Amino acid sequence: MTSQHLINLNTLTYNELDGLIKLAGEIKRHPARYIDACHGKVLATLFYEPSTRTQMSFQTAMLRLGGKVIGFDNPQTSSVAKGESLKDTVRVVSGYSDIIVIRHPLAGSARAASFFSKVPIINAGDGGHFHPTQTLTDLVTLKEEKGRITNLCIGLCGDLMNGRTVHSLISAMCSLEGNSFVLISTKQLSVPSYIKDMLNAAGAKYIEMNSLEEAMPMLDVLYMTRIQRERFGSDEEYERQKGVFVLDAKKMKRAKQDLRVLHPLPRVDEITVDVDDDPRAVYFEQTEYGMYARMALILEMTDNAVRTIKGAPKQTHATPCSNPHCITNTELYLPKLYREKYGIMTCRYCDERILER
Amino acid sequence: MTSQHLINLNTLTYNELDGLIKLAGEIKRHPARYIDACHGKVLATLFYEPSTRTQMSFQTAMLRLGGKVIGFDNPQTSSVAKGESLKDTVRVVSGYSDIIVIRHPLAGSARAASFFSKVPIINAGDGGHFHPTQTLTDLVTLKEEKGRITNLCIGLCGDLMNGRTVHSLISAMCSLEGNSFVLISTKQLSVPSYIKDMLNAAGAKYIEMNSLEEAMPMLDVLYMTRIQRERFGSDEEYERQKGVFVLDAKKMKRAKQDLRVLHPLPRVDEITVDVDDDPRAVYFEQTEYGMYARMALILEMTDNAVRTIKGAPKQTHATPCSNPHCITNTELYLPKLYREKYGIMTCRYCDERILER
Amino acid sequence: MTSQHLINLNTLTYNELDGLIKLAGEIKRHPARYIDACHGKVLATLFYEPSTRTQMSFQTAMLRLGGKVIGFDNPQTSSVAKGESLKDTVRVVSGYSDIIVIRHPLAGSARAASFFSKVPIINAGDGGHFHPTQTLTDLVTLKEEKGRITNLCIGLCGDLMNGRTVHSLISAMCSLEGNSFVLISTKQLSVPSYIKDMLNAAGAKYIEMNSLEEAMPMLDVLYMTRIQRERFGSDEEYERQKGVFVLDAKKMKRAKQDLRVLHPLPRVDEITVDVDDDPRAVYFEQTEYGMYARMALILEMTDNAVRTIKGAPKQTHATPCSNPHCITNTELYLPKLYREKYGIMTCRYCDERILER
Repeated sequence: MTSQHLINLNTLTYNELDGLIKLAGEIKRHPARYIDACHGKVLATLFYEPSTRTQMSFQTAMLRLGGKVIGFDNPQTSSVAKGESLKDTVRVVSGYSDIIVIRHPLAGSARAASFFSKVPIINAGDGGHFHPTQTLTDLVTLKEEKGRITNLCIGLCGDLMNGRTVHSLISAMCSLEGNSFVLISTKQLSVPSYIKDMLNAAGAKYIEMNSLEEAMPMLDVLYMTRIQRERFGSDEEYERQKGVFVLDAKKMKRAKQDLRVLHPLPRVDEITVDVDDDPRAVYFEQTEYGMYARMALILEMTDNAVRTIKGAPKQTHATPCSNPHCITNTELYLPKLYREKYGIMTCRYCDERILER
Repeated sequence: MTSQHLINLNTLTYNELDGLIKLAGEIKRHPARYIDACHGKVLATLFYEPSTRTQMSFQTAMLRLGGKVIGFDNPQTSSVAKGESLKDTVRVVSGYSDIIVIRHPLAGSARAASFFSKVPIINAGDGGHFHPTQTLTDLVTLKEEKGRITNLCIGLCGDLMNGRTVHSLISAMCSLEGNSFVLISTKQLSVPSYIKDMLNAAGAKYIEMNSLEEAMPMLDVLYMTRIQRERFGSDEEYERQKGVFVLDAKKMKRAKQDLRVLHPLPRVDEITVDVDDDPRAVYFEQTEYGMYARMALILEMTDNAVRTIKGAPKQTHATPCSNPHCITNTELYLPKLYREKYGIMTCRYCDERILER
Repeated sequence: MTSQHLINLNTLTYNELDGLIKLAGEIKRHPARYIDACHGKVLATLFYEPSTRTQMSFQTAMLRLGGKVIGFDNPQTSSVAKGESLKDTVRVVSGYSDIIVIRHPLAGSARAASFFSKVPIINAGDGGHFHPTQTLTDLVTLKEEKGRITNLCIGLCGDLMNGRTVHSLISAMCSLEGNSFVLISTKQLSVPSYIKDMLNAAGAKYIEMNSLEEAMPMLDVLYMTRIQRERFGSDEEYERQKGVFVLDAKKMKRAKQDLRVLHPLPRVDEITVDVDDDPRAVYFEQTEYGMYARMALILEMTDNAVRTIKGAPKQTHATPCSNPHCITNTELYLPKLYREKYGIMTCRYCDERILER
């Protein structure tokens, strides 16, 4: 990989992404070949907020490559996470490890960490910002289950406004040949306008619908997500609408024989348990593909890795980022960095536009 | 082993049990031969209630076989345990691992888990219900320390009414040749009637006594357990009686030269520290035998394991289980399943008789 | 090593200490040679108080030697730490492991643990008492960065009264040839008189100063430590004085070109971030040396280790230790043991003089 770190999936070239997807499939088919591939190497998991699911997936990935794992999972009991700057912790842990996986509640934290680490950083979620290995997981699942990641009619259902995984999957797939999108949600929870801009710019076809039942027959892939009760305007509206976006065995009858149903998990009740035994439901297999995806990524990133500290850029901007969830407002030693495009300033950590004050 | 999972020790045939006990001894004598026996395999510990002792024993067992360990130990900090069904968690983790050890506060949880797992499940305690590896540990200890698990006069002392380990040990040993039992407790804490029925049905000799001192000279084995203060009728009664059931150096003087003292640990004060240095006290060695017992079990269960999901039975009964601590009352998607014998319905998860309503 | 356990650094002979320091450097230069040096061995970390930093350093050290790690890190969630004596826990865990690292809030706990363990014990901090691997880390850092641990002018700055690491480093270095000490602190936080006695007895030169700026030009090594705000007489005094003991880029300009700056970490604000990029600042490298130091120690202590339980001494003194933070006042089965010198009784666990009552 040309980049030392993986902060966001869009920094990978198409060839790099394709290579990772193929390698994941290769590992799935021949796990024994990779059993000692990372022998003698150490992965550190720095989880500033608990996410047992993601952490366990990364840990298993490294262990199945023959490597070792250190780290913490709970800021409450971790004296490392308490009372020490992100910089110092990352600097120290990068002296112990060969690759670092970081999860943090604040946007831009993984990019900030990458300035101070000797070893490759993988972003395992920085607030609601990026979570590239979830999208890599989704792509590996599609490739293995559908045989391709092009020419697919992909339904996305649930909370399309706030769903990070949905935005990231659309972003990765809209520029690939022949993909079209069916966006299934309530009006209030439809995709943000910047996603439509992206779809339009890529020339990808899409339609918006508010009935999962009607959408079913046309889909090659259905990507389900959770709708949180509190996202609805009122409790009455929730009760009235929720069934519309629940996938059950009855709706599955209307679907193609080669449909595949994905879900980032955990599910609550947006997929009923009677769907689980349908061979088209692959959301449990998806977590296993996630393990292979992470194995491919760790293998690729630790192979011939250069151990250098890039350091934070020296220049800094006078204006602080106006996003209260941006890492720069907590870790004050970080330089303020912006991108300017069409006269709009965007924070290089959290990607929010800043309001000039 | 004929069964894919180990929920309760009584599903093992005598030959399987005997094979495990012998293998544990073999590993103890030649640990170096097994140092890489599980190379490339992963054990997952799903601990829905903390039990550092049991978890550490399983972890060490797998690590000493050259395998790897993942898992969680604390439902409070585990996002996997929170807000996801047991089914989904087990299904996902069985995609990561080669064998799962589960500990859960509710009875029947291990059996429920076994429906949804691709890989073998070991029950490490489901509420006060079963804890088969503790009993396996006890049997390995007896075999190694006494040379046999037959023709033994076994004293059991303490809380015989509520002690799960006591009931399980009696159940495993009462049908073996020549074993007799001395049941030492207060009247209130004597063994439940179903245990006496079992002893009678097996034709095993037993007597009940209320003095440890008097029992000492006749014993080949003394299995001590904790009496919880709150089990006594009153504080005065506790103060009056507690010394009667405390093992100390003075009582040890009355015992045979080849007595062996066992205890499932942790002890509080039912064995005084002056007994620790007596070579007949083997409760610390017992924990080490427990590690070898678990190594034998993991080795046996992962060897040539078939990866299939059995699935939950399709039929379900209309009546819910009347035991509030049964897993079926929390995980509502589980089918209600009962055994009928002599007109009595017993829950197949928690083994409680249900009250028809 | 002649001693089975490492409770305090001063039980090592000079040759043993020198051997460890050299081995640490050797491992740093040729890590691949040691990648399987502890294959099949298990290290247990018993952390009765959380210290993620220290625990992670030990874990990484063992993993980089090809060994395995078990343990607990949080007495709140650990059922082992709760309701079981230190003796029983150590006895059990020493049956699982090949070496134990213990951290405990009470002084003397590591020595107490060493009585009951089959396997070597490493003290990773017993209250404010000893923390030998921090000092070993400091010595390895000096040897690697300065090429020697003799003939150095060593500045120590910050809280010299309460700083355990400072006392331990002075103790280790004052008797080595040609070392001199510059003690930089406020009057209230100057070194205790017993340290001055030690320096005088060793014939080591030292001066006390209250200005870091003035001290800078003469130093070969600067060892910075934290000053806790509450250590100052008043908030005004803290505000007036704190800058005096803060190391920044400006003060670095006055220093020698081959100065090395050490700090046991975590830092708060006693070193400004603009010092981090100065090549003379080696406090981050120091944590990496700490990992190599611990690798050397684990390797040395597990090599040909004898597995025997020493047992607690049989004799005991009538008087309890008057130090409320001594382990003997919590673990009551421990014999009371004292050393007598010049008519003064010193507790053999916590090294406090006892007050005869």
